[in-house]
This record gives sequence, structure tokens and C-alpha cells, in this order.
Amino acid sequence: MPPEGLFAGVFARGRTAAEVDDRAWLQAMLDFEAALARAGARAGLVPDEKAETIAAACRAELFDVLELGREAGGAGNPVVPLLRALRAQLPDDAAAHVHRGATSQDVLDTALMLVARRALEPLLDDAEAAAAASARLVDAHRDSILAGRTLLQQALPLTFALKASQWLVGIDEAREQLTAVANSVLAVQLGGAVGTLAALEDRGLDVAAELARELELGAPPLPWHAVRVRPAMLAGALAVLAGALGKVARDVTLLAQGEVGEASEGGNAGRGGSSTMPHKRNPVAAVSAVACAQRVPGLVATIHSAMVQEHERAAGAWQAEWETFSELLRLVGAEAAWAREMLEALEVDPERMRSNLEAAGDLVMAEAVATALAAQLGRGPAHELVEGAARRAGGEGKSLREVLEELPETAEHLGADGLDAALAPEAYLGAASELVERALAAHRKTLDHQEKR
Amino acid sequence: MPPEGLFAGVFARGRTAAEVDDRAWLQAMLDFEAALARAGARAGLVPDEKAETIAAACRAELFDVLELGREAGGAGNPVVPLLRALRAQLPDDAAAHVHRGATSQDVLDTALMLVARRALEPLLDDAEAAAAASARLVDAHRDSILAGRTLLQQALPLTFALKASQWLVGIDEAREQLTAVANSVLAVQLGGAVGTLAALEDRGLDVAAELARELELGAPPLPWHAVRVRPAMLAGALAVLAGALGKVARDVTLLAQGEVGEASEGGNAGRGGSSTMPHKRNPVAAVSAVACAQRVPGLVATIHSAMVQEHERAAGAWQAEWETFSELLRLVGAEAAWAREMLEALEVDPERMRSNLEAAGDLVMAEAVATALAAQLGRGPAHELVEGAARRAGGEGKSLREVLEELPETAEHLGADGLDAALAPEAYLGAASELVERALAAHRKTLDHQEKR
Amino acid sequence: MPPEGLFAGVFARGRTAAEVDDRAWLQAMLDFEAALARAGARAGLVPDEKAETIAAACRAELFDVLELGREAGGAGNPVVPLLRALRAQLPDDAAAHVHRGATSQDVLDTALMLVARRALEPLLDDAEAAAAASARLVDAHRDSILAGRTLLQQALPLTFALKASQWLVGIDEAREQLTAVANSVLAVQLGGAVGTLAALEDRGLDVAAELARELELGAPPLPWHAVRVRPAMLAGALAVLAGALGKVARDVTLLAQGEVGEASEGGNAGRGGSSTMPHKRNPVAAVSAVACAQRVPGLVATIHSAMVQEHERAAGAWQAEWETFSELLRLVGAEAAWAREMLEALEVDPERMRSNLEAAGDLVMAEAVATALAAQLGRGPAHELVEGAARRAGGEGKSLREVLEELPETAEHLGADGLDAALAPEAYLGAASELVERALAAHRKTLDHQEKR
Amino acid sequence: MPPEGLFAGVFARGRTAAEVDDRAWLQAMLDFEAALARAGARAGLVPDEKAETIAAACRAELFDVLELGREAGGAGNPVVPLLRALRAQLPDDAAAHVHRGATSQDVLDTALMLVARRALEPLLDDAEAAAAASARLVDAHRDSILAGRTLLQQALPLTFALKASQWLVGIDEAREQLTAVANSVLAVQLGGAVGTLAALEDRGLDVAAELARELELGAPPLPWHAVRVRPAMLAGALAVLAGALGKVARDVTLLAQGEVGEASEGGNAGRGGSSTMPHKRNPVAAVSAVACAQRVPGLVATIHSAMVQEHERAAGAWQAEWETFSELLRLVGAEAAWAREMLEALEVDPERMRSNLEAAGDLVMAEAVATALAAQLGRGPAHELVEGAARRAGGEGKSLREVLEELPETAEHLGADGLDAALAPEAYLGAASELVERALAAHRKTLDHQEKR
Repeated sequence: MPPEGLFAGVFARGRTAAEVDDRAWLQAMLDFEAALARAGARAGLVPDEKAETIAAACRAELFDVLELGREAGGAGNPVVPLLRALRAQLPDDAAAHVHRGATSQDVLDTALMLVARRALEPLLDDAEAAAAASARLVDAHRDSILAGRTLLQQALPLTFALKASQWLVGIDEAREQLTAVANSVLAVQLGGAVGTLAALEDRGLDVAAELARELELGAPPLPWHAVRVRPAMLAGALAVLAGALGKVARDVTLLAQGEVGEASEGGNAGRGGSSTMPHKRNPVAAVSAVACAQRVPGLVATIHSAMVQEHERAAGAWQAEWETFSELLRLVGAEAAWAREMLEALEVDPERMRSNLEAAGDLVMAEAVATALAAQLGRGPAHELVEGAARRAGGEGKSLREVLEELPETAEHLGADGLDAALAPEAYLGAASELVERALAAHRKTLDHQEKR
Repeated sequence: MPPEGLFAGVFARGRTAAEVDDRAWLQAMLDFEAALARAGARAGLVPDEKAETIAAACRAELFDVLELGREAGGAGNPVVPLLRALRAQLPDDAAAHVHRGATSQDVLDTALMLVARRALEPLLDDAEAAAAASARLVDAHRDSILAGRTLLQQALPLTFALKASQWLVGIDEAREQLTAVANSVLAVQLGGAVGTLAALEDRGLDVAAELARELELGAPPLPWHAVRVRPAMLAGALAVLAGALGKVARDVTLLAQGEVGEASEGGNAGRGGSSTMPHKRNPVAAVSAVACAQRVPGLVATIHSAMVQEHERAAGAWQAEWETFSELLRLVGAEAAWAREMLEALEVDPERMRSNLEAAGDLVMAEAVATALAAQLGRGPAHELVEGAARRAGGEGKSLREVLEELPETAEHLGADGLDAALAPEAYLGAASELVERALAAHRKTLDHQEKR
Repeated sequence: MPPEGLFAGVFARGRTAAEVDDRAWLQAMLDFEAALARAGARAGLVPDEKAETIAAACRAELFDVLELGREAGGAGNPVVPLLRALRAQLPDDAAAHVHRGATSQDVLDTALMLVARRALEPLLDDAEAAAAASARLVDAHRDSILAGRTLLQQALPLTFALKASQWLVGIDEAREQLTAVANSVLAVQLGGAVGTLAALEDRGLDVAAELARELELGAPPLPWHAVRVRPAMLAGALAVLAGALGKVARDVTLLAQGEVGEASEGGNAGRGGSSTMPHKRNPVAAVSAVACAQRVPGLVATIHSAMVQEHERAAGAWQAEWETFSELLRLVGAEAAWAREMLEALEVDPERMRSNLEAAGDLVMAEAVATALAAQLGRGPAHELVEGAARRAGGEGKSLREVLEELPETAEHLGADGLDAALAPEAYLGAASELVERALAAHRKTLDHQEKR
Repeated sequence: MPPEGLFAGVFARGRTAAEVDDRAWLQAMLDFEAALARAGARAGLVPDEKAETIAAACRAELFDVLELGREAGGAGNPVVPLLRALRAQLPDDAAAHVHRGATSQDVLDTALMLVARRALEPLLDDAEAAAAASARLVDAHRDSILAGRTLLQQALPLTFALKASQWLVGIDEAREQLTAVANSVLAVQLGGAVGTLAALEDRGLDVAAELARELELGAPPLPWHAVRVRPAMLAGALAVLAGALGKVARDVTLLAQGEVGEASEGGNAGRGGSSTMPHKRNPVAAVSAVACAQRVPGLVATIHSAMVQEHERAAGAWQAEWETFSELLRLVGAEAAWAREMLEALEVDPERMRSNLEAAGDLVMAEAVATALAAQLGRGPAHELVEGAARRAGGEGKSLREVLEELPETAEHLGADGLDAALAPEAYLGAASELVERALAAHRKTLDHQEKR
């Protein structure tokens, strides 16, 4: 699990990667052992000073992560060699109290939860910043009109504020859900070999509760070693954020096409250079965010598949989660970082939006004209009239205006001014501005939530 | 989307399938059109009687679903032919008001939400019944002791009540989440061509609100045509339930192995017969539930991948959701139905549990003996002593008891009674009974929630 | 498994769907039983006339597929009720010879292979036609120059013939692989309950060989009931074809954007209409093909996951294959049909290609100028010179030509004619034409292969 | 991409991991640049000595992989910083010839192919060793009889040799396919910015051919930058091998259950220890192999999804392949290493197989008795008779033998000896031994193939 590596600039972007690397896992495992010793002490099972001696040794820098990794093959997980190494650092009378009442899975499951909690901080920070940048775009572009596009075809006009509102709502809903899921699922795991806490005599539940308090994780009603609802819910929430951000990035790659040119990535000089084409400025952030998004669903499918676990500890499915979760957090973290960079520096070109809309011709306004005529003609006849005109315009290479101007119904029911009005994109934006305000209001509410947390 | 078909008995089990079939989709699409007409009427855009005329024609049985399906290729979706057929059923003056202000995606997205809501009812009913059956097993087997198994190896003892509590908690947490997600995401979609509601003049938001009221779906702050957080969250919650049920079914297949024999599927005669082996009684429900679970993660990955949608309507990703969602609901519905049947008729054999545990030998109690000795000997020495004894027992083919009885420490620190106590599985169940009560309490709470909804 | 249904026009396009529907599966299962009876007869185990009596009853139309489907839940598969129904149609002395030596899985696995073989015929036909249409585009557009696009940014020029050659090679390689895989994996499965053929006395291998001959499927060295290499290879080859066709469709959606306009879908009138916007002609075939492609990888992941099967028959993973395979074949078949329609009617606009290229400005030719200057200046200095000029051009809003004309090095080393030449897209197409010929030659070779098969 | 790391002992097992780590990728990228310079020299575009100067600098140890990784974010890939660093190491007159005619994607795609080829060597070695170990098990256990198990229920007997033959055939078919796919798809990529090779004047095709020769990779007819058939086929073949090995590992975890005990993992002392339970010997190799297998399908789905790439270079989908491919190769490599260890040290217990079969009771032999009686009674009546007897035996808790002995038909048609014979598992193994010989013969043939390569 590389915080760094040959592709780190792309897929370990931002601050999340450092929270899911080997050192982070190792420290989280040690945090479990330290907290378990202290919880044991509070429950009267471990002498206080032994607990503190143990806790003092639970620092990642005292251990050789690569050595542990190599030895992980022996027992099928790195806990066994870690315990050996930890005990070797301690006087015998403290060593005897290490890992009291726990099993390997307790260590790794709780470590996963700690790693996730720590990784979600920068990840959600970046997602929030991406949302905030979207909100600024919304705010700044209430009057920037562009062509809406369906099936990649120009359709009716909308404002860029509304387009960015969609981005905003998507990111906000996804990060709110991720926050809510994290609050509900992040919890310690302590069950001992088969989930009975038998090795802790009659203090098992107390130790588990103390452990949760010590690590600031939830205290679940039952150990969840073979019931993977918690990791699976987390994975699903990450997938949703990945998709929401990916949608924004996808739009940016499309808007940045030379033939469209309605947005481009600003940002630091030197970004987006090509190895062969000096003239290009590639939308590197958007492309990288899409690449991250594309890798997420397959990993989430692995986590979902892995829920079907055998008895009290799975023979393969549980183990399949470890690296997969690191990857998931790293990739969604990188995607959030890219999305933030992309949106914070996005350069929007309202003139180009307008000129693209005009170049699309006034056929996109056919629905508006039909609506305007419907008042007098009735909806059916109005529609038929305009549909016919649109067909003729298309066929004869004329504008819709030209065709309409030749029709007696236009003169009679709309007049020249009415036709102008019906063909003006500004006048056919529906509820765009109200929707924009709703999105901004909802966004402010997510920030309030956050503060209250 | 088969409610029936050659494999229906397996994969369209229960009542969910009928809520996601062609007819169900068609009716949901028509429900949208009916509700839209009425919402338009309330907003003053459509004459009341026209709206009622439209609504009266919105009955699936008036349409030829196969014909519509065949024509769906023309526009790339079945809405265009459906509108044609619906208008053909109506007088012109009513036909002109059909689909006012909406676009194809509005129809299909809202229909998806209706279909999901209707399908979730039987699906969640069956999941609740499966949970209730688990709770009865918990209640009935507080004293049934069996071997916990980790990596498919016998480990320490636990009660079957605790094992079933794990099942119960998994199912309950998953269905609670699914219910919560459904409550939050099920909402109408109405945006018109590009999400501005422009064709509804200044009444767009009112119409959208009325539409939501009419269909008893949520009213989202913004249309969500290209922001797929809602369907993606739903898919994720379905995957989690599928996994939670799949875990239970997996355990049942393992417990039902002839060599284990601790549980078997009861149920109606004739179930589980083999085409060649008259003596077999196959765990058909468990196997079928596992099969359903196995198909879910790939479909959910499709939904997650499809979140990256272009601009105001995606060129492929949106369309990929339709049948995939039907499949998802159908399969998780079938799985819930199977899980319910399986659990309601599960036959548990506590004698076999006990005899398997005994056959496993007393080495599984080594940890218990070490814990018992630790009080006098100290944890470290106690562990070493027992580990040595266990190794000798394994090597010499003796029981742990035999080896321990030869050791002076046993006589000194435990005595014969103490050794008996330490080797008794009943005495080494830790917090099993408290955990069981927690699971039952949490289950009762989910039922309370449900009633309050 | 719907050959028809509400979305059939999109996802059951073409002739493949009819080969994977319930009736097709049922007939394939019956074909197995008929062929098994005859194979038994040839091996001397079944009287000839009984075998013919059985075979005569093996017609799908004699059975109620929905009834069988409903009953499939009893044994967990539809074979048990089918055998009951088949025997009920026969005199007792023939009924006694039905299914001799086989087990349910033999029937369904062999049926899967028959279904696949039959479905692959129209599927590969459509893929071949799509390739042929690509080849015609290649042939027709050797001189149509357009902008190559990397990361969706205009880069250097290429010919549309070369672009379509890429499509062609992708489709051809994918269908050749699919054909080769089909030839190698399509085989009967006959093993009896656990793969020993024990119920066929000493004639098991003979019966298996005769069965293969009868059904014109391969005779595998061993039964493969729990070794799923065959279905998994087939699924992988289908995914590759889906991806290759999806790439083409994706390109078409991008070329068909209003702002690009270099290609559009022709085809039958009425296709691509919008429910609200009369002016739009949507690229329905391309969009639908992309939608099909998007659904394939998740299904293939299900098949790959399902390879991990238990012992002599899996408890869930095998059953998960049935409908998944039908879906896979149906979707890739529909995608091939869409791709064929799309490519056969694709309208290409070389003028728009040229004008888009010109509108992109001459910065795209920077590499060409640098290459031209390198002969005299050396590669390094030439590159630096042009890079500087390109930067100035970008910064000052000039064309590259304008900036270059002001530089003394241009006059000295290129001259006016040299500059013209270096800036002409036609002159910077590299090996485009040779590559095009290679693609056409390779295509012709695939046709030869096919004929020889 | 960790060759090492905290979980390396599990998921970077064996020698494959070192071939896919950062250093391996970096060296492969440099190998491309070295070979490109030499190919350019042979084509007369680059002075020979400059080419050799370049090649001499193309050694991974001269570069800082972490620094390159960090800078990879600038251009969205690590090629741009690598070229900068490479040029900085060279005199200007050599630096000017670096990367001549190539684009970033050429470097990374060709590097992917080199990495794959190098990684496949140890991976296929381990898979071959796993097959060889299976073959030895086949050879050694021709007479070890055990219960075949379907849906995890004991069914008819088979030999362990036949069971291991199934494993063998699966592994062999999968590795043969992987080898064949590798031979067909591993090829250089050289196209320049948009696939025309324009920057290589008229020598592009020659350079490409020389490049292929230099790197000992295939020379594809066309560049394949946006046609991902090659990587996708490779991914599919890896998934099939992962599944084939995963099936074997799954069976081993099931056979190693304490209640079954028919096989266990031998191997080096200390493997399989538990952190809490000294008596356990966990099947670590099998569990780890299953864990690897479980992670593969999701990654392959990512590669399949990523086939839908835009125009001449994808905006995200291409980039998504890099790390995913490393993971795939690493995981399947680790799985092959685990499978080899597991099979080479597998301890099989024929006595336990026999005693489990006996404990299952003689009902598993019902089919055999029916077959024996059919000769005289006719198949139908024989079946009914035995089915009735089996039902009575089940109901009354008797053995089948006991019930049959009471029936007059038994005495009349079988006699005591005949009944003994019909109930003897040895006598009802069908074609097991012929099938075993076939598997061994097919295995030997794969070895011949290999030698000829």
C-alpha cells in the first residue's frame, strides 16, 4: 500500500494516502494493543504500570514493517509476528499482558476502523473543499447561459450555475452520507477467538467498552468479526462519493474539449503538459479524477462479495478486505484531492458558452416557441406547427426563425416581438434560479451540520 | 425482466419479483403520467377533467408491453412509444396535455423509484421474517453449545444462540440501513429536457411538489437526472442486505454438511430432492440464497460505474441502470424469501453439536486451562505450561487432560475439580449470554422503529 | 430471461436474444436428454426404439416453461420438474430410460453450451457485419483528415480511415478470439452425480463421446462440473468483444456531438427522436451500444467469482451462472446488433472534420514544424525554437504561422514554401496509409479464416 | 505497488511481486527508451553512439522513483518527469534523441507489456509446479476412495485421484490459455501522439519493427493505444487461472475441516499458528490462495470497463489500468505461489476418507444397487424398489443393507454376494481410473508444449 510510488502523483494525491499506508496500519494495530492493555487495566485485569509499559512500546517506528510483512505469511496475517516483536521489546512481566483476550482479527478489524477514520478526515476535507468550490462557481455564474446536453446532443439552455448546482448537490449528498455512515459504523472489534470474550473472564464487555472509549470508536452491541455490514456500508458510501465526483470530472473533460471550450483547468503552470505536443493543456485533474473513479466499483464489489464469510472467521473473504480497503480509501482520497484542485482553479468561459449555444442554431428553442404558441393555439396544434417548422428548417438549412417568420400563425399569435421573446434563451430557463438557490441553501446546511459534529 | 421464467423458482422466489417485472414498470410509468397530469391540474396548467381523463387511461392492462418493448429501440427507451400509445387512447384535447413539461428520463427515473418502493415492501417483509426466525433460534438455543470455527477449523466453544445472534444482528443492521436509505432517496424526478422545468412556465416547482405528493415519494431539492447518488445509495444498501443474508446461508450450507450435521433444512416434503440420489436432502434454500448473493456485487458495480454520467443526460450509463435495478431487486428479494424459508424451518441438532465438540478433543479448551492457571502461575508461565502440554498431547496422540493430569502444577494449582471445571465448555463461554440478550434487545428495537414508520 | 420485454428494443436487439430465452434453454435441455438417450442406445444401454420415443418427446412446445420454472424451487433447479414432466409424457418402458446416467448439472451445463453456441451465431454475424462496415468506412475515407484527440484534446491530424482502422482491428481481434475460445471450450458435460459416470456401467466414456457427436459439441477429456474454466473463458471473450464494440460506440457519441459534428447516425426515419425536442437526432444506436457494454463487466465478474466452486458441485456458485450467462450473451448480442446498425448507416462529414481541424489552429502542427527544422538545426534547438514560438502564439493570440514568420530561423531554414509544407496536415500523417492497408489486409484474413471454419 | 509491505507475506508471496513493483515498472519504461533509441539508430534516425549513450543511462538505479512518482501528477503520468530526468543525465546532443517519435502512452503501454511478460515467468512457473504437485497426488491416490460431495452433501464415492485430476485439468487448462494469450497479445506499442508515427518521418514502421525485435515483444499490425483488446485478454486469462487455483484452495479448506480431516497442510513448522489457540494448525496457504482469488474478479472488471476509451487516448480509462494490472499480476502470482506450497505439502488421509464414507452410511450406494437390480427388474421397477428402501432406511434409522436384506427381490435377484458387491464403493467408481489417466496424459502434453516454446 504505497503512500508513494511511481504513480503516486496521480493515485496517491492529497493527504489521504499517508493515512492508509503500511506505517498507518502498523500504528493502528499498535494503537489497538496499547488501548487494549489500558482497557484491561481499567477492568482490573492488567496492572496499570504494565499497561503503560506496553502502551509506551506501541510506536510504529520501533518496528520493521517490511520484516513483519515478510513474516505475515506464516500465520496468514501480520498480527502474529507483530505480537512476537512487541513482546520481545518488553520485560517478561509486561509481555505476558500483551494482547490479553484478543485474537488476530480483533487487531486487524479495529485497525481497519482506525485507519478508515483517520483517512476520512483529509478525504472529507477535500470533498468539502470541492463542494465549496462548486458553490462559488454556482454563485458566480447565475447568468452564464449554455446549452444543456442530453445524450451528448445540445438540447435546451440552462445556466452554468444550475449545472454547477447539480455537481454541488451530488458532492454534498455523497459526503453527507459518507459522514453519516462513518459515524454509524466505525467501531471497535473485540471478541476473542470466537466472539465470546471468554479469555477476559467476566470482564469482557467492560474491556470492550473501555477499548472503544480509549480509541474513540463506537462500541458495537456485539463483536462483528464475521458480520461485515460495517465495512460493506463504508465501501458503498465511498463508491457513491467516487461516482459523484467522477460525474463532475467527466463533465469537465467534456467542457474542456477544444471544440467546446467552455471550461478549462487553470492551476499551476506546467500542469497538463504533453511529452510531445507543446500546445496542449490537458485537463489533468479531471482525467485523473475520472481514472480514480473508474477503479472504485470493482474494489467495492470485492468488499461486497467478501461479506459471505464462514462461521466465526472467514477462510479467505476476510483477508481479501485488508488491502482492498486501503486502495479504496486511497483512490477516493486522491479523487477528492483532484476534484478540489480542478474545481478551485476551473476557468469558465461564458462567452464561449453563449457562442456555442448560438452556433447550435435556434432549433434548440423549438420547445419554447411551441410553449409560447400553445396559449392561443392549444398545445397539440402548437406542437405540430413548430415540429413542422423545425423539420423544414432542418431540411432546408434555414434557421427556425426564418421558417417561422414565413408562417401566418406566427404573425397572428406571436408577432415579431413575441417571436424574439420566444427564441431568447434567457427567457426559457424555467426554475433555474430557484433551483440554484436551493442548492446553495442545502450546501450551507451541510456546513452547519459539520460544525455541529 | 421475468417475474416468471425457467429459473423463477430459484431466482424469482417470493413476492418481490412481481413488483419489478415489465408490467410493474409499465404501471409505474403510467402512474407517473397520471400523477403528472393531476399535478399539472393542481398547478392550473391542465384542465381538471383532462387530467382525470388522462389518469383513467393510465392502466397497464390497456397497453401491449411487448409491442412497446419492441418499439423502444426507436428512441432508445420505451417512453416515446408509450406516449404515442397513451395519446392514441385519448381524445385530442386530453392527449395534448399528456407528459406536459416532462422528458423521457423523468418518466423512467420516477418509475424506477416507484418500482423500488413497491419491491422493497415484500423484500423487507421477508428480511424481517428471516430476522424474526433468527431471533427464535437465538431464544431457543441459549444452552446449545457448539464449536466456534475460524478459518473452518474448530476453535473455542460458543452457544448456538450467540451464533444465531450474529446472523440476527447482521440481518437487522442491513435491513435497518436499507429502510433508512429508501426513506431518504426515494423521490420523484421531474426536470424536463435539461432540468430547468422550463416547459412548465413558472409553475415547475409547484408541479414537482404536487407530483411528489401524488406519488407519495420524496420531493428532492433539485432534479437528479444526471446525479445518481439516489440509485447508487439504494444499490449499495441492497448489496449489504444481500451479503448479510448470504453469510447466514453460507453458514447453513456448512452446518448441513453430512460430516457436521448440526443443522438441516426442514421444510416442505419434496424440497431438496436429487435427480439421481434418493437419499439426499439438499439444503436448497441455503444454496439458492448463496446463489442470489453471489450475483449481487457485480450488478451493484454496474450501478456504481454508471454514476459517471455526461452533462444533462448520459449517453449509455443511465440506460444501463434500468434492467440492472430490476435484477438487483429481484435477486435480493428472492434471497430474502429463501433466507426466510430456510430460517423458519431450520432444524438444529444440539446433540450433534455437543458430540462434534467432544470429538474435536479437549485441545480446544487449552486457552481456558491457561486462563485458569494464570491466577496462580502468572499469565506468561501459565501459557507456556499449557502450550507445552498441548504440543505434547498433539504429538503423542493423548488428550490434553491426560497430559495435564501428569503435571505437578495441575495438581497443585487446579486440583481434579479445577481441571474438570477448566475443561468444561460450559464454563468458558465468556459473555455469550449477555451478547445474546443484547442482540435480542436490538432486534426488538428494530421492530419498534418499524411500527413507528 | 426475456427475448422480449419492456426494454427489449434496446437490450434484446437483434437475433441473439431469441437464442437465450426460456424456450431456448428448455429446448437445449431437451436436446441433451434426446441425445443422451440416443447415445445410450449406441452404447447398447438403451433400446433403440425407446431412445427414439424419448427423442420424439423432447420438443419444448410440449412443456409449460412457466410451470417448470415455478417448480424449479423444489430441487433448486428446473431439471427435476422437467424430468418428471418428460417421463409423464412417455410410456413407462421408455420413461425408465430417460436421463440414464446423468445428473441435473449435466443437463444444465450441456444446455448452457448449446445455448451459447446457438447464440454466438447471430452475435458473431452482427459483429462481422460491424467489422465489414468499419472496413467500408476505412476504404472510403483514406483522404478524410481530422484531428486526433488525446485526453479529449485536439492533438495531431490523422485520417478517418486510420481511426476507423482502429475500430476495425479491435472488432476483428475480439471476434476472432471469441470464435477461437468458442471452438475450444464448447463441450458436453456428462459425469453423473460426482463425475465418475458410474451409473453407465463400463460404457460411460462411450456414451459421453456419442453425446458429443450427437450434439456437435466438443468431447472434453474429463467432465468439468466443478472446474469452470470453460464458461469463464467464454465470459472473458464476450467481455473483450463488448469492450471493443463499446469503444467504437463511445467514439461515435463523441463525434456526433453538435460541437463536433463529424459523424452522425443515419438510419431509419423516426430513430433518435426525442419526447420533447423535435430538432434532435440522437445517436441512439451508439448510446444503446455503450449501455450494453457498460453492463457486461459486472456480469463477467460474477462468472469469474463463481469459479471457486466446492467439491463435486457448488453450493451456490454454479447456480449463479445460469441467468448471468443468458444476460451476457443477450447484451453482447444486442450490442453487436446496435454496432452493426450504427456503422452500416454512419454518416461521416469530412468537411466538418477539416474545418474543426482548421479551427483548432495551427498549434497542432508544432511538432511537424519542429521535425522539419530539426534537419538543419538539430533536434534539441529545433524543439526549443518551436516550443517558444508556440508559447508566444498561445500567449499573444496569434497563429503559430504568424509567430514563425517573424523568426529569422524560419526564413533561413524553411523558407515560405517550407513553412507551408510543414504546416500542412496532409504532409504529417506518418504511416497512416500503410497502417490502413494493414488493417484491411488483416480484416480480409479474418474472413478467410471464417470461410475455412 | 508494493513488492513488500505489511501484508506482503500473504499477497506478495512468491517471486511475481518483485516483477511488478515500482522499480520493475521504471526499468521497463527505461528499457523502452533504450530500445527506441537503438531502433531509431537502426532506422538511420539516431546516430549509433547517441543511441548507446542513451541506452547506457537507462538503468532504474540512476533514478529516484519516489521523486518521479510525486511529479507524475503534473502531466498525469510519470513519463514526463522521467524524460526530464533522463535528459538531465545526458549530454545535450544525446538528450535531443531521447523519446524520438514516441508519446507517453507508448512508453507506459510497452512497459506494461514488458512488466507482464516478466511477471508471467515466475507466475507460470508456480502454476506449473502446482499442476505437477496435483499430478503427483493423482498418481499416489488412485485407490483412495472418498465421498464425492455435491451441494456440500455426501453423494457417491470417487477416488481422490479423480478429485485431484479435476484440480489438475483446471490448472493446466488455465495456464495453457494464459500462455497462449500472452504469446498472442504481448506486443510493443508505438504510435506517437495519435498513432500515425508522424514524428518518425517515413521510418515509423521500421522503427516499430526494430523496437519489437529489441524488446522481444510482438510487432502488432497497428498501434493499439485506444484499442485495449490486448490488456483485456490478458486480464481475462489471469482471472481464469485465479479461479482455477481458487477452486483447489477452496476444496482444501473444506477437506481440512476438523470434522472432515481428509487433507491438511503440511509444510514448514510454525505455519498456521494462531495468536490465541496453540492447538490449531490453520490451512494458511489455502486460505491465502482463496483470499487472492477473491480479489481478482473486481480488478478484471475494472480492466474490462476500461476498454471503452475515447478517441486516440482515453481521458481516465487508460490511466485506470496501470496500478490495476500490477495488482492483478501480483495477486495471481501470489495465489500461484500459495497453491504450489499448499499442493506440494498436502497431507492426505485415505483412512479418514474411507471412515467418513462409511460413516455416511450405505444410502450413498442406493444408485449402485438400483443399477445392479435393473438388469433383472428393469430400470423403472428397480429404481422404485430402491427408492422405497432408501426412504424406509432413512425413516427407520436403519442401514440400506438392513432394509434390502428383508426384501424378497434382493434375495432373488442379487443374493448376499450380489448385495455385498452392489454396496461396495470400490465397485461403483465408473470411469474414474480412465479419467485419471486422461488427466495425467493431458498434463504431460502441456509439459511437452512448454518445452517446445
